[in-house]
Order: sequence, then C-alpha cells, then structure tokens
Amino acid sequence: MSKNIKKIGVMTSGGDAPGMNAAIRSVVRTCAYYNIECVGIYRGFEGIMEGDFRPMDARSVKGIVNKGGTVLKSARSKEFRTPEGRKIAHDQLKNAQVDALVVIGGDGTFNGGLVFNKEFDFPVIGIPCTIDNDIFGTTHTIGFDTALNTVVDCIDKIRDTASSHNRLFFVEVMGRDVGHIALNAGVGAGAEEILIPEENLGLDRLLESLHRSKRSGKSSSIVVVAEGDKIGKNVFELKDYVEANMDEYDVRVSVLGHMQRGGSPSCFDRVLASRMGVKAVETLLEGKTNYMVGLLNEKIELTHLREAIKGQSKIDRELLRVSEIMTT
Amino acid sequence: MSKNIKKIGVMTSGGDAPGMNAAIRSVVRTCAYYNIECVGIYRGFEGIMEGDFRPMDARSVKGIVNKGGTVLKSARSKEFRTPEGRKIAHDQLKNAQVDALVVIGGDGTFNGGLVFNKEFDFPVIGIPCTIDNDIFGTTHTIGFDTALNTVVDCIDKIRDTASSHNRLFFVEVMGRDVGHIALNAGVGAGAEEILIPEENLGLDRLLESLHRSKRSGKSSSIVVVAEGDKIGKNVFELKDYVEANMDEYDVRVSVLGHMQRGGSPSCFDRVLASRMGVKAVETLLEGKTNYMVGLLNEKIELTHLREAIKGQSKIDRELLRVSEIMTT
Amino acid sequence: MSKNIKKIGVMTSGGDAPGMNAAIRSVVRTCAYYNIECVGIYRGFEGIMEGDFRPMDARSVKGIVNKGGTVLKSARSKEFRTPEGRKIAHDQLKNAQVDALVVIGGDGTFNGGLVFNKEFDFPVIGIPCTIDNDIFGTTHTIGFDTALNTVVDCIDKIRDTASSHNRLFFVEVMGRDVGHIALNAGVGAGAEEILIPEENLGLDRLLESLHRSKRSGKSSSIVVVAEGDKIGKNVFELKDYVEANMDEYDVRVSVLGHMQRGGSPSCFDRVLASRMGVKAVETLLEGKTNYMVGLLNEKIELTHLREAIKGQSKIDRELLRVSEIMTT
Amino acid sequence: MSKNIKKIGVMTSGGDAPGMNAAIRSVVRTCAYYNIECVGIYRGFEGIMEGDFRPMDARSVKGIVNKGGTVLKSARSKEFRTPEGRKIAHDQLKNAQVDALVVIGGDGTFNGGLVFNKEFDFPVIGIPCTIDNDIFGTTHTIGFDTALNTVVDCIDKIRDTASSHNRLFFVEVMGRDVGHIALNAGVGAGAEEILIPEENLGLDRLLESLHRSKRSGKSSSIVVVAEGDKIGKNVFELKDYVEANMDEYDVRVSVLGHMQRGGSPSCFDRVLASRMGVKAVETLLEGKTNYMVGLLNEKIELTHLREAIKGQSKIDRELLRVSEIMTT
Repeated sequence: MSKNIKKIGVMTSGGDAPGMNAAIRSVVRTCAYYNIECVGIYRGFEGIMEGDFRPMDARSVKGIVNKGGTVLKSARSKEFRTPEGRKIAHDQLKNAQVDALVVIGGDGTFNGGLVFNKEFDFPVIGIPCTIDNDIFGTTHTIGFDTALNTVVDCIDKIRDTASSHNRLFFVEVMGRDVGHIALNAGVGAGAEEILIPEENLGLDRLLESLHRSKRSGKSSSIVVVAEGDKIGKNVFELKDYVEANMDEYDVRVSVLGHMQRGGSPSCFDRVLASRMGVKAVETLLEGKTNYMVGLLNEKIELTHLREAIKGQSKIDRELLRVSEIMTT
Repeated sequence: MSKNIKKIGVMTSGGDAPGMNAAIRSVVRTCAYYNIECVGIYRGFEGIMEGDFRPMDARSVKGIVNKGGTVLKSARSKEFRTPEGRKIAHDQLKNAQVDALVVIGGDGTFNGGLVFNKEFDFPVIGIPCTIDNDIFGTTHTIGFDTALNTVVDCIDKIRDTASSHNRLFFVEVMGRDVGHIALNAGVGAGAEEILIPEENLGLDRLLESLHRSKRSGKSSSIVVVAEGDKIGKNVFELKDYVEANMDEYDVRVSVLGHMQRGGSPSCFDRVLASRMGVKAVETLLEGKTNYMVGLLNEKIELTHLREAIKGQSKIDRELLRVSEIMTT
Repeated sequence: MSKNIKKIGVMTSGGDAPGMNAAIRSVVRTCAYYNIECVGIYRGFEGIMEGDFRPMDARSVKGIVNKGGTVLKSARSKEFRTPEGRKIAHDQLKNAQVDALVVIGGDGTFNGGLVFNKEFDFPVIGIPCTIDNDIFGTTHTIGFDTALNTVVDCIDKIRDTASSHNRLFFVEVMGRDVGHIALNAGVGAGAEEILIPEENLGLDRLLESLHRSKRSGKSSSIVVVAEGDKIGKNVFELKDYVEANMDEYDVRVSVLGHMQRGGSPSCFDRVLASRMGVKAVETLLEGKTNYMVGLLNEKIELTHLREAIKGQSKIDRELLRVSEIMTT
Repeated sequence: MSKNIKKIGVMTSGGDAPGMNAAIRSVVRTCAYYNIECVGIYRGFEGIMEGDFRPMDARSVKGIVNKGGTVLKSARSKEFRTPEGRKIAHDQLKNAQVDALVVIGGDGTFNGGLVFNKEFDFPVIGIPCTIDNDIFGTTHTIGFDTALNTVVDCIDKIRDTASSHNRLFFVEVMGRDVGHIALNAGVGAGAEEILIPEENLGLDRLLESLHRSKRSGKSSSIVVVAEGDKIGKNVFELKDYVEANMDEYDVRVSVLGHMQRGGSPSCFDRVLASRMGVKAVETLLEGKTNYMVGLLNEKIELTHLREAIKGQSKIDRELLRVSEIMTT
C-alpha cells in the first residue's frame, strides 16, 4: 500500500450519466474502508481550480446509490485547458493536501487527467462513466445499460401509438459518434431498421428495406437513428425524404433527447460502479497512476489512460448481423 | 332494457391514448354480462365503411387491460366526412346487424358519431379517451392520468441532468390547444415556470421570472411548455430568445413527443375506463343515445355529445395559483 | 390574515406514504410565499417533545417533490399520549416560538393534533396522507394513487408468471380495515376475484366463483385479498383451503408488503399534495384551526378533524358492481 | 448447413423468466431467415407428448419482444420423465416432421433434452433462461438482469419506508440454491448485509454486523436474504431472532415472491435472447446437438449440455469483497 496517499479527491466531469453517484459512493466508501481521507470536488476541473472541496465520510454518501445525476455536479472548463489553469488547480490540491485524483467521466475527462499527471506527476485514475459506451478498454461504461433501458422503454411506448395508427417513426437516440445505443436499443426494441454511423446504409437501401418490411406484412415501423448517423443531414430531413418517396406510411419523428442521461441507474450500472470505485482507489493505493479501470471479460482490469483515449470502441459486428436476422 | 339492441359495435378513433384497451375490454365484458353480442370495429370510421368487424366475446379481451395503444387500431377517415361515406358505413352496420355504437375517442370522434346518429337515427354513446383532457363534461379523460405520469417521469430524468450541469431546459409537452398536461405535470415535476396557451406570460415576464429564480438560489431550471402555447413561435425560438438575453444558463430543449401517448395505463385510467365502459353499454340498453359518459364529482354521469363538443374544458385557475406559490 | 401566526411547524406522523415530501415542500413554500417562518419537526410528536426542529426555507425543500418516504421522518410516540408528554411538547413549541402546526398523516395523527389543540388552544391543521385512503372528508388521501400504481404494476408482473403456468395467485395488498386498495387495484389489474373486509364473500362462494371462472375458459387467476379481509384467518390459510378443495389450479401466495408504501409519487399525488399544502397554510393564516384539508368534488375543502376521525370512508358500491361485470 | 433439418420445434419449460418471449421470437425469426419451418410447442415437454404444436412464421412473434412470461406457456411434466412418455413425445415429433428442438429453460429442461437425445438421437440445443443465473457455461442467463432490476426497484421502495421509520428490513429474494440475485441486487440496492447460501455468516456475526452498522450512524438497514440461505430456518425466524436480541430496531420482513419472475425484460435480456436464439438455430443447422448456447467473455459460445448441468455456477468472490467494502 502506497504510503504517500493519505487523501484522495473524487470528481465527475463531462456529460452526466446514471451511476455517477454510485461511483462516487464507492470511491468514498473504499477510502473509508482503507482509512484514507476523501474529498469531493464540485463541478469537475472547474471546481479544482476554485478549491471547491468538501470532506466526504462513509455516511455522507448514503441514499445516493440509486439517484441519477451527480451530487458533485459536472462542468466543462476552458481554463483548465491552459497551463495557467492547471497550475492553479495543482496549487489548490496541494493546499488541501490532496494526494491523488479519481476522475469519473469520458475521454475528455481522462485527457484532462493525463495532461495534469504529466505536468505535475500527480496520481490520477479514471472511471469510465458515459451513456455512449464509447471508451476503449471497457465493454461497458457506467450509464450505458441504464440508457439502453430508458430508450427501449420509450420506444415501447412509441410502438404502442405507431401500431395503433400504422405509422413509421424515426426515433433519434444519443451516442455521439458511435452507434452503441442505437444498435443495442434497436435490437432490444425490435426496430425494423437501425441507422448507425458505422454503417452507411444509404437512402436508397433504406427505402428498399422499408418497402420490403411493408410487403412482409408489417403495418407499422420503428427506425432507430443514432445521433451521429450521416445518412441524412438530420432525422427531420430523413423523414421528409421518406415521405416524399413512400406514401404507404404516415411518418413521424421523435428525438428522445436528454432524458436518456437521467434516471435511477439499473442494477447492472450500480454494481459496475461499485466494483470500479473499489478498483480505482486500490490502484492508487498500489502506487499506480494513469490507468482507467474497465470491465473486460467480466473482470475489472486496468487500461492505460492513453490507450483508453486513443483506442476505438468498436461496434459489435455480430450484433449487427443479429439485428438483420431479427427484422426478417 | 331496450329490446332493440342485440348487438353493439365498439371502435376507437382519433389519437390513441393509454386506457383505450381497458375501455374496449369493459364494453365487451359488459355486453357479455348482459348477453348482448359485441363486435369490434377496426380502424374507427374507416373500418365501419369497410365492414372490418370481428365478434368479441369476454375471453377475446383477456390480457389487454394493461396494454397501451388500441387492439382495434385507430385511423382518421376523410370519406366518412361525406354523406356517401356515411351511407356506406350505415349499410355495413345494418348488414352486420349491429344495432348501436360505442365510440371511444375525442371530440372529432364524437362529432362523427353525432352526425351519423342524426342521419340514420343510429344509437351512439361516446367514451372520452385522449391524453389532452380537453373534453367538456368530464373532469378526466381516459389517458390523461397516464400521460401525466409519463411526463413527470421524463422531467424527473431531465432534472437529474439539468441539476448536474446547472442548465435551463425547455420541455415541450402535448395537450393540443389546452394546457392541462403542462399545468399538472409542471406542478408535479416542480417546474420553475409553466407556459400554457390560456395564459400568455409574455417574453419579458418570462425572462424576469427566470432571473428571479436564479437570484433566489436555483442553479437549474425546468420550464414546461404546452405545445399549444403562443409565447414563442415554437420552443426552439424560445430557447434562442432566452439564450440571447440571459447568459446565466446553458439552455437546452427537449420535445417529449409521441411517447406521451403510449405505455401501460395507470390504475386510475384502467379503473376509469372500466367504469365508463359499463355505463356506456348500460346507457344504450336504457334506450338512450347521443350521450358521452364522463366523470363528474367522482361519479359517472351523462353529458349530451353536442355539449361535450361545444363546451370548453377550462384550466384550473386555482391550480395555476398553486403553481405560482410552489415556485417561490 | 391572522396576525398571530408568524411561525408554522410542519411534521409527518404515522405510516409513511408517497407524497409526504411533496406535502412538506408545499407547506414550506407556501410559508415562504406569505413570509411566514417555517420549521420542520423531525419524527412527528416524538420530535416535538424533543424539540427536534430545523428552520426550513424555500430552497431547503428542493429536489424532494419526487422522492418517496419523508425527509422529516415519522415515528409513533407513546409519551405524547400522556398529558405530561403533551405538556413537554407544548413547552418546546412555545420556546421555539412556533405558533401553529400542520400535521401530515392519518387518523392517529389527527387525533393527536385534536387533543393537543383542546388542551393548549394551539392551532392545528391536518393533511391526509396515507396509502389506505381510509379518511373521511376526502375522496383521495395523498399516497393512495401511487400505491395503486405500485400494486397494479406488481400484479401485472405476477400475471405474467401466472398465465405462463396456469396458476392461481392470492395477492395480499395493504389497506388496514378497508378495501380501497384491493378494490381499485383489483379492477385495475383485472383480478378474477377481489376479497375486501366490507364484503364477506364466504369460502363456499369463493370456490364457486373460481370454478365458474375456470369453466368460462380462464387458465390462470389472480385473487386480490385486502389485508383486513376476514374470509380466511390469513391469506396462507386461504390458499390451503382452496388447494384442498380444488385441484384444477396450482395455487401460490404473494404478500406485497411494505414496498406499497414507498416509491416516487405519481403526478396525481404530487399535485394533490401541492394543493393541500397551500390550503393548509392559508387556513391557518385565516385564523382557523382543527380542520383537515380534503379533496371533495375536485376542490380542496375543509372538514373538521373530529368528523374526519369519526366519519367512515366507505367503499364505492358502484365500483364493486363494475368489478363483478369485469370478471364476466 | 445441415440438409437434415427442415423443421425446428421451440418450447419453454420450467420456471418462466423475462426474455423467454424474446428468445422464442429470435428462434422463429432465425428459422424464417434460413427458410426453415418452425413450430411452437405449448407447455414444454407436456405439450410435445400431446402434440400441441402450432406453426410459427416471422409475423407470428411480432409485439412479444417486450412482454414478460412466455406465449408458449410452461409446465412441468412427470410423464416425460418415463421412457413411455418420451416415446410418445418422439412419435408426436416424428408425425409432425419436426427434426430438431430448441429448449428454453434451466437445468431441468436441459436434462430432459439430453435424455431425449440419447434415446432417440434427436438434435437438441438449449437456451439458458432463468432468473436464478444458476447455469454453468454462461455468465448471464436470460431473465437474470431483469430480475435484478425488479428487485432493486422494490428495495428502493422499501428503503423509503425503512429510512422514514428507522427500521430494519429483511428482504427475501429468489435464487434457488445460489446467491446470485441476492448478492448483485444487494450491492445494487446498497444493502447493509447480504445473506447467501454460499457464505454462512452465522447468527452471532449477523447481530454483530447490525450492531456495528447502527454504531456507525445508520438509522435504518436492509438485509437481503437469498431464499436458499441457511442461516435461519426461514426469514421470519431470522426476524424473531434479531428482535429478541437487539432492541435498537423495529424489524420487518418482506418476501418479494413471484413478481421477480415477471415484467417486461430489460434491454440486456432482450439483446441476449436475440443473440442466443440466432446461435441456437445456427448450431442446429451446422449439424450439432446437445449444446447450450451461453455468454462467455461477451461472446455467444457453446457448452455441452452435460457440462452445463453438472457444472456449478459460482458466486463472484470479488463482488462479495466489494459488498463488504460498500457497507463500511
């Protein structure tokens, strides 16, 4: 156990995701378990620079394991991207005698941590927490599973009205540049077509597929569209194109939006967050730095932050094939 | 009991709403209870003209009380608006020996029923079923309560991310020309401001209110906007205006959309639908026609369809006052 | 407006119910709106005697409108039932310059308030909050609607497994001595039989009904049993009796238990709590005491606490009739 | 592709689990994709013997991906355990020209399939579907993830009332002889203690742990108890023991029961079921038999049914350690 680490700071940064609170709780409780002090840092890197720290003991995180959002709040910080900003941040941490950081968030968060470590040799461990699941080095980011359940629950509701009226719905879901949410939620919700940035189906083949679907006896259809998809400029233009070229359907659009980021985390995300928080603190106590904890082959493993940022989270080709078979 | 009625047709029409299936089930089971035949008519008035009828016995509606959408499907029919179309419809009903209709839907549905009755002296009873709650003669339409729960559940999720990031969200909800959903869900979700068509707050006072809210210590805000509200041309313009005139907040928009029409109905809507279905059939059996069944002072009462269509469903002024006090 | 009331205490007592927090929030915000001080009293009458008070301003209740349970906690107090205990309580309130009480709970709570008012002429207003809906003077207590949704959601799940296996389930629900939850949730969940204390069906007729249900083609059955029902000594004995006398079904029991008291309140309960909290404070400010606020004919009205306690909350006979028709 | 297989039968057997319908749908759609006929077999092995078969095409499984229970129903069959019963079953399959079976269920189901294959050289592939997750050869059975979400949702509700009243709750969850549900849901719900059959804590240490928990400042507690746990004879005796030896808490019991088997499947379970159904059919078409499809290291892999039955699904020791740290 590293003698040098007596106080750990924990923060959340970037877009919030369900399970952030469960991860914070796990970091805090693991510190308590090892008799390490823990301070909560408010509003991410912004809060480091402002010294917005509060001591957190085991009881301070009670009742948050099932809450969406983040009790430590999140923010994006321009100033931290400058050397001056980071110097201020380092001074604040030194003043508060914080010896190491656990940063909870996505690749922007990890990049900030990595730069900070390089400049000040400050120990940093990352916990991947974003609904987009776009991080290399973990099969699941915290929040992804909950977002999938939120999305299928919404599409189930939309399906009720689609099938009552024989309508075609384009449902836009989040996911930044990757199609993980769209592909998984699309298969889960039984979507007739799934449009993801990794596969440019093309407008002609989309039309063809919708026609085939209609002929096969389907009276209503759901097309799940990843926000990063490039087939149309946006989902509304896609609707216009299909309406102009296909009169069998009454076409509607639904953009699910920010509700995908909120809500009480699923059991999977709570358990994952609990496991990752323990590993993050224990990795710091072993004297290591610059790692992300991740789920690989059902175990919590370490990946260097540099790889986590540079590596690409790839779509599951096999699941893509399953999705095609399911729409037979 | 009316000797003349031996077979009742039941149909759903207009926008679907949670509880339509519970209402269908109630009509079918009540017919079975009184040994009256019942036929389900598919796709509303369109289906009458096409003779798309199927006999329904008590067992045929099992397992649907908790399902969203409508097993009888819904549609809008242009042809039924013509005398020729209605003549065809009447012939189909006569051929099938259907003696009376229970029509489930909103004011468009009731108007169709009323015209049909006038021309052919055909017994018609209406059951109010729409999420908008915009029908005179009932304090609650079937589907309204479920839609409110869906909306507050979504806003609770949006609140998680709004408060994590200190953001201002404009959340657009359904409701056609009235603000019932916005007002009730706004109070239920603890919205900082509620914009409804019945009250034009004006852009200046909206800004003022948001500033006051910020000064009072609120770090994030939810503004619920009824789709029929006229303060901005639409919710995205509203966002632009506020962003241009207020830099304290990062502003986002979420349009909840059609998911508000779907989902498993709440217990309230299932019970209401069960009660209304019984009353609808019993009213026909008493030899009456042209009434809507409605909930008034906790009892199921009759209102003439003409009044139900012409009358106005007014916003609850007292609740508006409560909403202002809640945002103190 | 009463000049005498400058500080109001608010407390929750008895069994907790979803919406208690929304009611607390409404009382606190209404006080703030009228520039009246408000103190939260922890653990009901017990907390009065211990002087466990904390000042509550408008911001102190943020983020609780959608939370189950009660942030002020609840408890039962033996000592408050003695004159000595109440004397101590009165001294504590006087010391803290609390001028009036809003008590949130059921009839036990109201009785405590009434006795306290009688002895010390201390202004008291009650807000009915219990899942059982067993209070005279209001068609709905806060928490009842949420509990109904929780129960139908559970029974929907049990129905999945019942119908997969052709089983008969006895599902015991809460409700103390009345059958409101059982009757409403039973109709909502499409139960084949509903056993409530107000109607002793008798074991013979229950068996007969189950046989008839089986003959009519139902392969599985749900019987909802109110905890206060007297047909069997308890639900497990009921199961044994039916198993001994009917071999068509594989019989199971599910006692839903305390989860019925928890969970995020429905929109209906949040709105009701908001309306009642406003009326409670305004009634005190008008110089009145010893009233309960209640929902009667869709309006918030006053009923004397004495009547609220003595009066009986009766089962809806018409709904009982609807439930019989639904099981045709 | 095996020339011999032209028609596949699919059935569900044993205790039902959420996702069974998604698995059926996947098998049916995959058959359609490969132009193989598919017949649904009702009520498991019982239905084979009775020849209760219905042809299923791609459209016949629409709208079931999100439904709990099993549209094919499930049953336990005594007769199939006899050579005579299996002979009848084989005759029925031959008569209906069914060439292979996909059996969806748990180890009892797999054992039946294995014996049947041995006697008649009939191709059989198994899909693991049970909430208990007690099958060797897959990290997740279909239904496990949904059951975890149902359980944590229930415990979240119980927590509301526990913390309002400073109570200790024993919550009994399913899981047969293993503690997977208890351990995962216990960590997810933030339980203070988790009692599983794999670890006999002993009554003394349980008391000690509860005392320590109380001293550390916790005012309420949730103890999750696996149904297979042996520490007390049952959960009610556990309650009695703790009440007799600890007067700090008001103790209650909640047995969650059969609702754990129902409900709409989570996205995870729907996706898993879709993937497994494809693999099951493709494995048969490759001419293989007697395998179970399972999730291993995020891929769908084959395990011989014999191993799946004999092997032991072990508790995650690392998660047990995490659970201890979380209750610090």
